[in-house]
Amino acid sequence: MGGRYRPEMTRAGLAPTHTVTAVDETGARREVRIAGERPLTLYVDKREIVTLMTLGAHPEALVLGYLRNQGFVEDLEEIVAVQVDWDVEAAVVVTRGGTRGWDERLARRTVTTGCGQGTVFGDLLARLRPVPEVTVRQSRIYALLERLAGHNEVYRSAGAVHGCALCRDDEILLFIEDVGRHNAVDAIAGHMWLEGIGGADKVFYTTGRLTSEMVIKVAQMGIPVLLSRSGITQMGLELARRTGVTLIGRAKGRHFLVYHGAERVILDAPPARARSA
Amino acid sequence: MGGRYRPEMTRAGLAPTHTVTAVDETGARREVRIAGERPLTLYVDKREIVTLMTLGAHPEALVLGYLRNQGFVEDLEEIVAVQVDWDVEAAVVVTRGGTRGWDERLARRTVTTGCGQGTVFGDLLARLRPVPEVTVRQSRIYALLERLAGHNEVYRSAGAVHGCALCRDDEILLFIEDVGRHNAVDAIAGHMWLEGIGGADKVFYTTGRLTSEMVIKVAQMGIPVLLSRSGITQMGLELARRTGVTLIGRAKGRHFLVYHGAERVILDAPPARARSA
Repeated sequence: MGGRYRPEMTRAGLAPTHTVTAVDETGARREVRIAGERPLTLYVDKREIVTLMTLGAHPEALVLGYLRNQGFVEDLEEIVAVQVDWDVEAAVVVTRGGTRGWDERLARRTVTTGCGQGTVFGDLLARLRPVPEVTVRQSRIYALLERLAGHNEVYRSAGAVHGCALCRDDEILLFIEDVGRHNAVDAIAGHMWLEGIGGADKVFYTTGRLTSEMVIKVAQMGIPVLLSRSGITQMGLELARRTGVTLIGRAKGRHFLVYHGAERVILDAPPARARSA
Repeated sequence: MGGRYRPEMTRAGLAPTHTVTAVDETGARREVRIAGERPLTLYVDKREIVTLMTLGAHPEALVLGYLRNQGFVEDLEEIVAVQVDWDVEAAVVVTRGGTRGWDERLARRTVTTGCGQGTVFGDLLARLRPVPEVTVRQSRIYALLERLAGHNEVYRSAGAVHGCALCRDDEILLFIEDVGRHNAVDAIAGHMWLEGIGGADKVFYTTGRLTSEMVIKVAQMGIPVLLSRSGITQMGLELARRTGVTLIGRAKGRHFLVYHGAERVILDAPPARARSA
């Protein structure tokens, strides 16, 4: 706990995978694991906000991160309690200030690209601040990618999930998977909020695509570097240019593409074939 | 046109990819293609409904499919016109009946798992009907997978998109990619609606995961077989059991796993090693 304020919270994390029987192409019955997916309806001061479809492994952090990333709550001390009860598939949040002034935000919806949610897009854009300017070394990117290869547990056993990681240098501070990528990001944001972890010296990794939503959330967390195994979209790139997020995609093995912020990536470990190129 | 009713529609499809310059791990500048991603705000009879983040290749069909899959409009003749104008990033829909009675539906939101959107989940579940019982032959699945390998154009050139296909036997009737998988599904639903194409004799293919949202939408379209390269989630499986959708995942090369409806899959082309198994 330390001296930090903490809301009253349940610890209602679910087992992420389930075993079911499937029939393969040879007709053989096989026990296979599949990813959990549960609806979790969020009520704040008895007001229904949204239903999130989630793996359910980190429901309290997910709810906190959702409220913060959606711009509903700025100060953790506003949150008195987060109670998750899977029997009724509900997360009940109690705040000090109540939900007055949430109406406009709740009225509008944006379906964001990558596993999107009802995001008040324009509003979020307006509140986006540039991230700190930091450099990142190629050698650390490679070291990080090697470490990350050891994660993705749910994905390896069941597939159907996205993984996100909060990293510092080549160290993985937090790795969270969920059936919805936006949930994995929100759960990480929730953890950072609870622990008072800043974003300025971090790298955010995702297995998923670098869409507008990912860049917005990473910028909201104040994280200057976004690293992904996947590709990017036009708006993801536009938002990186706007916020200064260094955008590194297609990162696999020794390969990557820097879509924005190349001047901040120090190529201190170019692959052998590089010099001959 | 034929004798079918058609709303007045623009044809405002955008080019799906854009060329940008990125820097690779060797420090070389490279021209690479990225997927487009544009916000498209949907107004129905001057009322703002939602903002969709989309590749923009099939905006009119997307809007129609969205309205239908969300349960807002049941009858195509309700739609007078669909006008898409990218200069203002708006899709303007004119209906005969107006948006009275949409309030409750617009008030609630579910963030579905796979590239989700504000779906009135419970309401959709209540309106789900079982799909027709049809058998599918392994040999046709293989033939279809071979044909599908030739698609995914945007994905191959730019990544960061999901592909969905409407198929009959081993024939690909429609293949649509989008940055949001839910958009690809909705655009296919919109095309089916416009052309009066039924789902009963179709197979729906997706590159993405078989989540609750995918199964719901395929069931809404009355398509009895859902085929994917990816894995499934717990709720995707539950909804397949509920609606009778045959769920075939992990379909790559000669491999697949039938998660639901194995009794309707005729194994007429088992791989060689099968018999020895």
